[in-house]
Amino acid sequence: MNSRQFGRRGFLKEGAALAGMAFGGIGLARGQTPGSKAGEAHPEDLHAYGKRSRFENSVRVGNNGVSPAFRNPALRLNGGPHTPLQDSVGIITPTSLHYIVSHGYDPPDIDPRQHRLLIHGMVDRPLILTMEDLRRLPSVSRVHFLECRANNNPSVAQRKVATATVQITHGLTSCSEWTGVPLSMLLKEAGVKKGASWLIAQGAEPGNHTKSIPVVKALDDVLVAYGQNGEAVRPDQGYPLRLVVPGYEGINNVKWLTRIKLQDQPTMDKREIVDYPELRPDGKARWFNSEIGPNSVITRPSGGERLPGRGFYEISGLAWSGGGAIRRVEVSTDRGRTWKDAQLQEPLHRKAHARFGFAWNWDGSEAVLQSRSTDERGQVQPTIAELATLWSLPSDYFQTTGYIFGHFNVIQPWNVTRDGSVENALFS
Amino acid sequence: MNSRQFGRRGFLKEGAALAGMAFGGIGLARGQTPGSKAGEAHPEDLHAYGKRSRFENSVRVGNNGVSPAFRNPALRLNGGPHTPLQDSVGIITPTSLHYIVSHGYDPPDIDPRQHRLLIHGMVDRPLILTMEDLRRLPSVSRVHFLECRANNNPSVAQRKVATATVQITHGLTSCSEWTGVPLSMLLKEAGVKKGASWLIAQGAEPGNHTKSIPVVKALDDVLVAYGQNGEAVRPDQGYPLRLVVPGYEGINNVKWLTRIKLQDQPTMDKREIVDYPELRPDGKARWFNSEIGPNSVITRPSGGERLPGRGFYEISGLAWSGGGAIRRVEVSTDRGRTWKDAQLQEPLHRKAHARFGFAWNWDGSEAVLQSRSTDERGQVQPTIAELATLWSLPSDYFQTTGYIFGHFNVIQPWNVTRDGSVENALFS
Repeated sequence: MNSRQFGRRGFLKEGAALAGMAFGGIGLARGQTPGSKAGEAHPEDLHAYGKRSRFENSVRVGNNGVSPAFRNPALRLNGGPHTPLQDSVGIITPTSLHYIVSHGYDPPDIDPRQHRLLIHGMVDRPLILTMEDLRRLPSVSRVHFLECRANNNPSVAQRKVATATVQITHGLTSCSEWTGVPLSMLLKEAGVKKGASWLIAQGAEPGNHTKSIPVVKALDDVLVAYGQNGEAVRPDQGYPLRLVVPGYEGINNVKWLTRIKLQDQPTMDKREIVDYPELRPDGKARWFNSEIGPNSVITRPSGGERLPGRGFYEISGLAWSGGGAIRRVEVSTDRGRTWKDAQLQEPLHRKAHARFGFAWNWDGSEAVLQSRSTDERGQVQPTIAELATLWSLPSDYFQTTGYIFGHFNVIQPWNVTRDGSVENALFS
Repeated sequence: MNSRQFGRRGFLKEGAALAGMAFGGIGLARGQTPGSKAGEAHPEDLHAYGKRSRFENSVRVGNNGVSPAFRNPALRLNGGPHTPLQDSVGIITPTSLHYIVSHGYDPPDIDPRQHRLLIHGMVDRPLILTMEDLRRLPSVSRVHFLECRANNNPSVAQRKVATATVQITHGLTSCSEWTGVPLSMLLKEAGVKKGASWLIAQGAEPGNHTKSIPVVKALDDVLVAYGQNGEAVRPDQGYPLRLVVPGYEGINNVKWLTRIKLQDQPTMDKREIVDYPELRPDGKARWFNSEIGPNSVITRPSGGERLPGRGFYEISGLAWSGGGAIRRVEVSTDRGRTWKDAQLQEPLHRKAHARFGFAWNWDGSEAVLQSRSTDERGQVQPTIAELATLWSLPSDYFQTTGYIFGHFNVIQPWNVTRDGSVENALFS
């Protein structure tokens, strides 16, 4: 079963789709016993839809400046609410704790029955699809991480201090099982015209965020996703529809997706040519450089925690890469002098978080814990000095300069002091 | 890294653990900026902990008779709240929609700081473990289904009628990413005495549910789980600790786990010798027959839905087996005369739900849709007649007799009528 087969079958009639009602969705029969679709459950009916324990209070922190949600000004970070990675287990991020970046907008209140996806521009057959149209089509489910391009970027002052937690340093990445229709299938149905090399994806929020994405990527592994971790995509993640662009910067994963336009070039707006490119000190920049490099971080123990005493601890963390599957994670407990292989939880998904574990006996002396990932292409996560060298900068550039450009996937050291306190040691 | 290594390291000091405070857990350092652990978030702060869209109202239905939660008596099923499989996508069940069976008890309100796990009986070194003790140990994360032994059992009258939904027929199975400590590691640390062939697991709820489990299974793949889908196990799933016994009947996955006792025989209480065994019409029964057989069901389209018209539909469903990974799912659209392979979503986890898809063009005539799974051992899901034959019963036994014993993993046919209505056709 591949998309070409479906193209041949012509599951959407040519032209007819443009009327917006090519076919309806599967609905409840009339007269059915009220059940799951009836929406009768009382909001506090925990048998109907459960809640976590009152003793669990792990929450997202940080915000994008528009929400009054966080009353502690110290938590007002640029870049939106961050996932509490210090409390994470496994590789699935609880949907309620997925990081949020929304360019200043709270989620629009979209009725899925009214929502439409328009595919137009350089195509043979423009399409307008309802949510139920999409749910009738062949779907795939895949585990993928998302990561904001600003994750871990030390231009945010709170990330440079010794007291920074892993939530603050790395909490702009999360991982979900996404379900949707391969965009390649929809593009095949629409018929991409010769010369159409870019698509412009647009959201339905008031700001109408747009992003230019190469058609070659769209035909590879991009999903038009309506499902996240077994249920509908959440409002803060783009309900009812978002683009999932595996391994690319978060900004590409357009939320509240309502329009895809095929063009022969990207849209050269301010964001694409000024905000997103990695402008380097030498004045050069890389445009449309979207793929996330190999990264990893120890989530436990991590900044702000305290070890109660000597003895055994499992060091646990996450690794990910836009380049594919993680192949190896090494851990050092001695400030990078020696490295040993960590244990990776299988299966290892491509362009997804990987959970690693490493057995450690703390002898009570000062220790520096850090992890280093290698992906399926052999790309290795750099140290902060190696990244500077890679970019032809002085090796202490990032320590001495406030402005940091582009992806910042450097090895994160945590310093364990003699009293068991764990501190951010990236800049010390 | 294997458990023997950890046994050698002696991560728990002999005897010391019995004092209940062998070591403390990783805690927050004093004076830390209030953050994710502070629990300061307002309950309605959706940036802190999100909610689904107000347009999404899929809920669990059915109850165990003790909760006033369901006001519609038609939905009061024996067996607890069922997962709305008709709305499921992918293989992860949203934690809030995981099925619940609790033998008549609402979740106890357990403070995890007070919770202890005692491992005793025929062991060299009894252990008392706190939650933080457990979180310091090597952990694993694996995707596994759970299923109540009563799932799909037509002794529940609501499952036999033509209007039954897939939630009612099959909603007592769900699938999660579970995180915890391998029980084998804890047993190695405790030192299982020669002759100890069974363990008795016990919950902390008022009813103190217990279940006898073979030690050989415990040493294989059983988890002492504190994590579910990336966060703490939910109260209705055993917060803060449950046993996960992959591929075994749900009853083995003891919730609110507080005690594991090693014995040289199972506990022969009423449930074990009267309730759980499969008493057959010939008077024979199989005791301690816990492994779930190969099963599958089409979740969309399914009972109670209505197809709006002819044309393309993806048939989507779930398959699972206690025998290991699903290797094959076939779909028939003509009442079982012909079968074709469905597409399986990869990776295929062992003892976990597998999602399958099958392309179908409905021509408007009556059709009977059904799926058949095969697991890694070559076990094939039977028809209702084949199951009767397998058990040396008349082939129409289940249709004509109200009492049904044991696992009922038969092929589920859905009848699509000319007006597009989808009906349960298992008993027609």
